[in-house]
Formats: sequence, C-alpha cells, structure tokens
Amino acid sequence: MSSENAFEITFLPDNVKVKAEVGESILEVANRGHIHINASCGGEGVCGRCQVELREGQVTASPGLYLSEEDFAQGLRLACRAKASGPATLYIPIESRADASSFKKAAKAEENLAVDERDPMVIQYNLEMTPPDAADNAADLERVTQALAASDLRDLDIELGALKKMPQVLRDENFNVRASVFFEPAIADPSRPPYGRLLSLSKATLDETYYGLAVDVGTTSVWVRLVDLATNAPCPAIGNLNAQISFGEDVISRIVYASKGNGLQKLQSQVIETINGLLARLEENYPKFRDRLYLMTSAGNTTMSHLLVGVEPKNIRLSPYAPPVAAWPSIRPSFLGLDVPSHTVMKIFPSVSSYVGGDIVAGVLAAGLYKNPELTLFIDVGTNGEIVIGNQDWMTCAACSAGPAFEGGGVKCGMRAAPGAIEEFFYEPARKEHRLGVIGRGRPIGICGSGLINIVAELFRGGVISKQGKYVENSCPQVREGEDGLEYLLSPASESAGEKDVVLTEIDIENLIRAKGAMFSGYQTLVEAVGLTMGDLERVIIAGGFGSSLNLENAIAIGLLPFLPLEKFAYIGNSSLTGASLALMSRSMWLQAQNIRGMMTNFELSETPGYMDKYMASQFIPHTDGALFGL
Amino acid sequence: MSSENAFEITFLPDNVKVKAEVGESILEVANRGHIHINASCGGEGVCGRCQVELREGQVTASPGLYLSEEDFAQGLRLACRAKASGPATLYIPIESRADASSFKKAAKAEENLAVDERDPMVIQYNLEMTPPDAADNAADLERVTQALAASDLRDLDIELGALKKMPQVLRDENFNVRASVFFEPAIADPSRPPYGRLLSLSKATLDETYYGLAVDVGTTSVWVRLVDLATNAPCPAIGNLNAQISFGEDVISRIVYASKGNGLQKLQSQVIETINGLLARLEENYPKFRDRLYLMTSAGNTTMSHLLVGVEPKNIRLSPYAPPVAAWPSIRPSFLGLDVPSHTVMKIFPSVSSYVGGDIVAGVLAAGLYKNPELTLFIDVGTNGEIVIGNQDWMTCAACSAGPAFEGGGVKCGMRAAPGAIEEFFYEPARKEHRLGVIGRGRPIGICGSGLINIVAELFRGGVISKQGKYVENSCPQVREGEDGLEYLLSPASESAGEKDVVLTEIDIENLIRAKGAMFSGYQTLVEAVGLTMGDLERVIIAGGFGSSLNLENAIAIGLLPFLPLEKFAYIGNSSLTGASLALMSRSMWLQAQNIRGMMTNFELSETPGYMDKYMASQFIPHTDGALFGL
Repeated sequence: MSSENAFEITFLPDNVKVKAEVGESILEVANRGHIHINASCGGEGVCGRCQVELREGQVTASPGLYLSEEDFAQGLRLACRAKASGPATLYIPIESRADASSFKKAAKAEENLAVDERDPMVIQYNLEMTPPDAADNAADLERVTQALAASDLRDLDIELGALKKMPQVLRDENFNVRASVFFEPAIADPSRPPYGRLLSLSKATLDETYYGLAVDVGTTSVWVRLVDLATNAPCPAIGNLNAQISFGEDVISRIVYASKGNGLQKLQSQVIETINGLLARLEENYPKFRDRLYLMTSAGNTTMSHLLVGVEPKNIRLSPYAPPVAAWPSIRPSFLGLDVPSHTVMKIFPSVSSYVGGDIVAGVLAAGLYKNPELTLFIDVGTNGEIVIGNQDWMTCAACSAGPAFEGGGVKCGMRAAPGAIEEFFYEPARKEHRLGVIGRGRPIGICGSGLINIVAELFRGGVISKQGKYVENSCPQVREGEDGLEYLLSPASESAGEKDVVLTEIDIENLIRAKGAMFSGYQTLVEAVGLTMGDLERVIIAGGFGSSLNLENAIAIGLLPFLPLEKFAYIGNSSLTGASLALMSRSMWLQAQNIRGMMTNFELSETPGYMDKYMASQFIPHTDGALFGL
Repeated sequence: MSSENAFEITFLPDNVKVKAEVGESILEVANRGHIHINASCGGEGVCGRCQVELREGQVTASPGLYLSEEDFAQGLRLACRAKASGPATLYIPIESRADASSFKKAAKAEENLAVDERDPMVIQYNLEMTPPDAADNAADLERVTQALAASDLRDLDIELGALKKMPQVLRDENFNVRASVFFEPAIADPSRPPYGRLLSLSKATLDETYYGLAVDVGTTSVWVRLVDLATNAPCPAIGNLNAQISFGEDVISRIVYASKGNGLQKLQSQVIETINGLLARLEENYPKFRDRLYLMTSAGNTTMSHLLVGVEPKNIRLSPYAPPVAAWPSIRPSFLGLDVPSHTVMKIFPSVSSYVGGDIVAGVLAAGLYKNPELTLFIDVGTNGEIVIGNQDWMTCAACSAGPAFEGGGVKCGMRAAPGAIEEFFYEPARKEHRLGVIGRGRPIGICGSGLINIVAELFRGGVISKQGKYVENSCPQVREGEDGLEYLLSPASESAGEKDVVLTEIDIENLIRAKGAMFSGYQTLVEAVGLTMGDLERVIIAGGFGSSLNLENAIAIGLLPFLPLEKFAYIGNSSLTGASLALMSRSMWLQAQNIRGMMTNFELSETPGYMDKYMASQFIPHTDGALFGL
C-alpha cells in the first residue's frame, strides 16, 4: 500500500484505526484490522448481515436489496459493498459484530472451491468438419460422429434436442461447432469406459464459458451457485427459503404431508418453484446462461432429494428406515419441471442412510475429511443433527434427532434466525442486567437458535440458571413466575415488536438441553464406538447455516460442542453447496463423493448400546460429568 | 385329414373342387387347391381383399370391418376369416383372384418372422430380494442394484418412471419383481459392454409376456406389428393411411411442406396421430399392452424417419443430398408424442443415403440378402424406387426417381389402389374387347399403378400400343382422339362411378414408360457397375405394397422387371415391417441391419456415367434392345 494515498478508517465502538486506500471494501479494511464483521455470505452482498453505520466522513456506496433509501439516508451501509473513499468513522453495531474468537480457521466458502484438476463431467470439444459435397455426402450426424471418434468418443447417446438443432447449427457455423458431451461416471465398475451423451452442438466462439449449477436443497433454504466449467470460476451463491416451508418446518412433517393425496407433487412443485426463482435471479446477472447450462449437482438430505425427484419418501420414517434411494441415477432436471433445457443433466449426491443425506456427503467432501489424516468431528447442527467422525482412512456417521429447539421450535418465543430474533445476549452478573443483539436491529420479536444458546450460556455463567437447567430463585429480577412456571424476561412487550413479553421459560431450557444432549451423546457414542475419546479429536468442523452465527464458547459452555481448544474448531459455511460445486468442477470429486458414501459406517443411535445412558448423562449444563468440560 | 369328416368346397368360376374339414379357413382350402385368392395382408383379415361370394351351402363367418351387414347378406365373405362348415360353392370374383403364376415363391410375411435365437434388446430378469430389516436397511434401489449385479448388470441408467414407482412395486410384490432392462447396442465399438437402462420394475407374474412394436412408416401408409418378446410370437399387422397424405403424396412435397412455417411440427403430429390411432386399435385386442411395451423399432424412408423424429429434412432434397441423420440414436417415443409410456425405447433403422432409407435396410434384412450367396436384385417399386443388388458378400444400392405414375400420379385418370381403381385388365385382340377388374368391385373411378401396367401390357400385346408407346391408329374402336391427343376408352362415364369417361392417354403411357425406364436403367447401371449382366441375377425380390398386386408377366412385358424366368421372382410383402419385427426379436438382427447399411455402396444414378444413356434406351416397350427381353 502506497502511503501517500492512504488514509485512516476508524471503527467504533472499539475505536480501532486502520489504514485504507480508495476502492477497498470496508469489510477488507476491517478484516485487516482484525475487526470481524458478520458477513455470512462471504462478502457477496447477498446476506445483508454486515451493516455498519457511517458516523463521519464518507464511503462510496448505494442502497440496494438489503438497504432501503431510508436506511441509507440514516447512514447504514453494507461493509462488503461500501468502498473506502477517504477518512471515515464507522460504527459497528452489535448485530454486525462477529465473535472474533469463534472462527479462527473460518474460511469463506470460495476458499474451499478449488480442485486439483479441471475434469468436469461435461467436456466440450471443438469439432472441425468438412461440409458435405458431391464426393462426400455422408449424413450430418455421421460427420459429427466421425469428428467425435477422432477424439476417441464412440457410441455416444445423443440428446433429442441436439439432434433437432444439428442441421441448422452445422450450416450456420460452416461445420465448425462445439460439442458438449456428458460422461456418465461408472460407479460400480470404474474400469468400464464412461458412457457419453452428446448434449448439444453449439457455436464454437472464442468465449468458451459453459456452466454448471450446484444446488443445496435444504429443508429451510435452498442455495445455488453457478460455476463456469471452462475455468472453474465460481459465481456468488444465492439462496432463498425453500417454499416447502409452508408445508412443515422439518423433514418429518414434510414426509407426512407428502403421503397425503397429491402432497408429494405439491411439495415437489414447491421446491422446483424455489429453484426456478433462483434461476430467474441468475438470469439477471448471467443472461441466457441456461443455453450453456449442461450440468447440475444437487445435495440435500435424504428427504429433500426424494421430494426434489418426486419419489415417495414415506419409508424414510418407517422402521426399518430403508430409504427408497441412496445412490441416485442421473436425472434430467427438465423432466422435474426445472426451467432448464433438456440438455442439462443432474447428478444428485448419494445418501448414507435415511437421515444422513447427500448434504453431509457433500459437506465431508468440501471439508476434505477423505484426504486428511487428522481425526475430525464434522457436525451439522439442526433439528436433524448429523455427525461424522473420521479421517482419510475411515468414517462413521449418525443422525441425532435433536428436536427443533436449534431452529427456534418448541421454544415459547422461538423463531427462525430472521429480523427481530434475539441472537446476541450479554449478561452482567454485577449489575444483573443484560444487553440484547437483535437481527435487523429492530425491536425483539423472539429468540432464534443461536440466541437460545447464548442466553442459556450467559445466564448459566451468571448464576441465573443452574446445572440442572432450572432458574435459581431470586438470582435476578428478570426471573419471575410465568404461565408455564419460572421464566426470564428478556424484553417486556413495551420494548418488543410484538404485543407480548419476550421470555425464556424453563421448558425452553429443557428443550435446549435435550437437543444439545442428543448431539453431544451422539459424538460420544461415535467416538467410543471406534475406541477413542473426545480428547482425541483433532479438528471440529461446523457446517450448515446454523454454524455461521454460533458462538463457540457459549456452545461449549452449555455442552453442545465438546470441550476443546477453540483453535480446533472451524466453520466451513454451506459445505453442502461447496461440495456440490466441487463435484461440478471435477468428475474425480464426484467419484470421491461416492467413495465417501461407501466409506461411511452409519450408526442408528437409538439402536446403539450405551447411547441412551450417554443421552441421560448429557441432560445437564454442560454435563453430568463435569470433567468432560474441564470442570 | 380324416376322410369321414371331409366334404368338398367348389370354387367358381374354375369349378375346382377341394376337400375340406370343419373349421379350416376358406383361404387355406383354396390354397390347397392351388386356387390363389388375393390376401395382401397375409390372411389376417385386415386388408379386405380376399372377398368371395357364397353361392351355395354354408360357411361360418360374420360381418366385420371390411364387410357391411348388407355385403354379408348378399353372400360376401372374407376367405381368410370364413371357416368351412360343410359342402359349399364359392365364386371368386376377378378382384379377389391373384395371378397364381406371379409369385411362385411368395411367402407370407410371418414366414420370414423367425430368428435364430431370441436375444431382444430388452431382457427381463426376475429379481428376488430380501425386504429391509433392522439388520439391513439399505435403500430399495441398492437392493435392486445388488440383485442386478448378481446377473452381472452394473451401472445401469434408471428410468425416472421406474424410480418413482419402485418403492410401491417392491412392497406390493414383497421384493420379488421383474426388471426390464434395455441394452443399448454399441455399433462403433462392439467390444464395449452394452450400456444398460432399467426401464421398469413390475410384478413378476407367471405370465411373462412383454411386447415390442415394429412400425413401418411409409409415405402412403403406416403399418405396425406387435411382437411378444418373451416368445417372439408376432401378432397380426395392422395399418392405416399415413395422415400426412393430406400434405402431399410423395416425399418431396412433404419436405417442401415441412420447411414452411410450422410445417415440420404439423407433419410430425400427423404421423404420430396415425401411429397413435393404430396403438388404440391394438389396445382393443391387447388390453393394456402399453404397460408391457418396452421396445419399438421403426423403419421408414429417410424423409419419413426425419419427420417422425421431427428433424428438419430440407437438406435431403438439396444438393449434395446429405441427410441430417443416417444412423439414429435411441429415441424415447413418448417424447415425440406417441401414446406409449416413458419406459418405451425406440430404435430407428439407419438410412444409406437421402433416398435409400431404413425401410430398404429393413427389407434387405428381411429378405436375408446378407446371408445368401445368390446374386439378388431387391426392388421396391414406387415414386422413389429403390434398388439393391448384391448378396452376402457385397451390396450396391440406388434410388430412382421414377415419378408418381406407379402410384397413379401424373396419369389423367390415375388414383391410388383404392376401391374404384381399375387394377385388372384383359384385352381380347380377336374381339377387340376388354374386361376390367375394379378394386371393391364397384364401377370404375380411375386407374391405379398396377392397373396401368396391366393395361399397357395387354394393349401392347394386343397391338393397340406400339413399341414407342403410341396408339396404333384404327387398331380398335376404343382408341379415339381426346382432349390430350389419342386415348383409349376404358369405361364410358355411363358405366363409371364418376361423371367422366375413364381413359388412358398417350401422355399417361409416356409417364409410365419414363417410370419403368428409370427403374430398369437403374438395375442395369448397378449390375454393370459390378461387371455383371442382367442374366447373372439369380433372384428378384419385390418388396413394398405395390408388389402385392403386381402382375409379373405384365411388368416384364412393359420392361419394368427384367426378362427372367418367373420362378426367380419372389414377392416378400411388407419387408420393411418384417425387418423391423426381426430387429425387435433379436439384437443380432439389429446389429445385422447396421452391418447391411455399412455394406451398401450407394450410387447416385444421376451422377453415374452411362445411366442417362441407359435411361434413354429404356424409353420403349419393353426396351430399345429387344434382346434384353428375349425379342
């Protein structure tokens, strides 16, 4: 950085000054000063969580999706989008401050988006043919077939759409065209030559861009990432709520809905519409990208994959929990109703079991467990919490039925991590006072999952909640007798967005303890099953949307995460989407995903000896056995 | 035949008596007495051409598609459907009498419908699996995959429809099901293992019937034949006019129509509707056959195949006559709009060139040229006349643009071979009188292609038409001056169905001479191109709908067929449909079709030296060089 052009940006409330240059994003400048601003989307301007307030000076920015004209007039800016343009003072509100201690190893999803070699499942070939003449009037398709044979490609299946367009494309391009060929990976017998399918013949321009689309089909939200398969350059991910949410918040309620009347079709059309909406948004930035979209990968839990394809999922939840499909055949997404051409092929990540799905396989792929000697605990915290323990040599996995507490369910004032949710909570025992951080900075409406963890951890630390998860009487004025027993008043109705007091009840605490206990006893069971202890874990990788807002120290304090040095933890972001993106880029990554699935030994926890005992022992804060938490 | 139950049937007008037993068809009885009754459909009751008149006694029969209640009351019966039940006298009208001398080697299509081994492209496997339990809750599809692997089937593609139905079918059948697997034949590299596709999982009943459907897509008519692939038993063929006929009678007019506006889609939908109509008729006799219909083969000329799939055919008729497609990839007929399930796969016969199509390849397959050492001339007479000369070692082929005369086009009173068409014609020089045979036995409307040949041959023989194709003045009272020069009065308006005289003009004769000359000079050119003479031909196989009503002696007399002993000729019927049926039954027959296509050397006659000279020399009756016809 040349010092003559440099100036200083001051960050409040910490009053840290960082040198900056014109054009740098405020997020970059803050990072350099070790000031961590929330940017869940990795600084792509799509999550709106990195809002900062301009107090003095100026930055270059404009309103947008996440900032209204009004917000903007009041000085709000997105740190990832605002550019330094001169000396300025910026206030970082509590909602935008990331707990810097939490994710020492945190990486933006894109940092993992690198593969050793570019070998996508769809490869393009330039075919140079001679036009027919009287001496050689072989059929158009024979010319194409011969040109492909010159690249050692024989007996390709040919997409009907490609066939229909062929005569015109060949003549428009004077018989010099680009062929896009999909190679079906052979899984059972990798020695056999991959079976090829000619997806399309198109103009052979200088611009070699062609696309793949990774899709993470989550129960709550759906994310997509476009990748330029010619260069492996990823485009920013975009996401939206899974429209199925109106038909039940968790997989069980979706399965139940699917089994009634035309419920399956309805749920399928909901998720298809959600993805179609994202495709339409992509179209704005990447006009006509669909013409060049040849490959899709999709990662989702077992239920979500079934609903996407339209396969009746009811057996997933019926004993003995044999899902219809674990390893999916190639699917034509256009047949499912997706707004993509018939030349697009979709590969769906394989599931391990009914409750350890393709999203986890993709996540493990993204986390690199399969190539890492370190003993790693990989977790995705949620209603259905998934756990993987292993390394490059072996892996075990399990799903814990944690219940909906982490997603705000079963909690009196629970809600999803949306504006109005209490996410941050600080309790000062000396003054018996608390401060709240609310998503979106408005008045509180309720408590989200990470807020719940933070509140319980702080109140436990402050002596307001006992080891048993009960309120300590007279410990502070906020504890009072409510409708459902003792409760803690977080925000009276008068200070809240709704008409009711926002409170945390003892029942809520019980639900959280059950949920965190289910997860923790899951780790324990898997660790012990392979003859190890929690202390042997060398890395803990936290995946999923929940992980991004998780306060590590608080999660350990309540016994959700194991008691390990913080530097062993890493947040990997949306690893399902990352894994799906890697498989787009690389056939060998796709094959690796199959390999990972094959490596995993699945434990049905409810049928594993010792699990229930461990679960019972975990029903305290942090645990019956304090030694597990250094107590 | 036990004599005590036998009785006699008398056939008029020849007054031949033949012994018969109760239950035999009249057609069989007549055949035994060497009395040949027209039965174009091979005695399947679908062509209506074998009508006979019951004069005395009784037969067992009922009215039907081809016989109204009224016809029936008047004594008309279909010889193929009527059963002997006692002594009877039957009159065989001229329209129903086949020229017995014509087809010494004639074979019903079914007689050729035999393959050496049953190896269809779709094979069924019974899969016996154990239902999932707590000890093994692998996914349903994994069970199927493992069961298939036990039959050495790996990495199958899986039909989406099969996937969706799988969970229910497995449970309904307690995990014992039948799998229908299509094996994609590898043409370019036959050493690679065939790529399999699981089309369907279904109930494993004792009834193992499953179907294939052969389709002959002709310019004029479409025929289909259902085959039970479990036993290779063929069902009777049924056919109908190709509904495209309203959009032009020959391939050129169809190509022109296809290139305008949405002409291609319109023509495609016409032929699809035609086939759908035939499928609906099959449904009447084979209820729900579609559920078990896994394979279709289609044979048609190059243009018809393009219109069926919906590939723009315009380059077929533009120099240098390079068709878009010669060898077709597998097609899903449901995508084309055919009323068949998505599990049905269609293989389309490959073309040799723009005008030697899959129908000819299928015909040559059916005729067995590829395995026969005899030098064979295979011809399909029509507007586009196709010629193949060769044997098991080599084949040459060509298409002749004969013009529409053989199909009644370009002829003043020309019409298709439909009721009212003059087909038979006998001229008695002594009395200068003629007798007519009219299809359907009503009053004449016009002249069909075979009628045209018969009339010209008889009038040439009778000295009414000269070698130059001109009327000999004053040769008979029927020759008169008409609007277009001299003409022969076949039937005055007063005796005709229409309001005009039915006549044959000199221009009509010229058109016929051009057409037959184009064919004959085509044979000559191919024969000479390989250093042989016409006399070297050991067999002449006549294929196509036209052949069935062709009078061989008359066709030789005008110079359409070569001057060879009649026993060298054989009529093979709808060899396109027969070839398509054989390929249904046998993968090796399908591969043989590819082989035949590869063996064929195509001659573009218009660019072959000497063809034009030969054509000019052929413009006489029978030929300039009388020695070629033993004159």
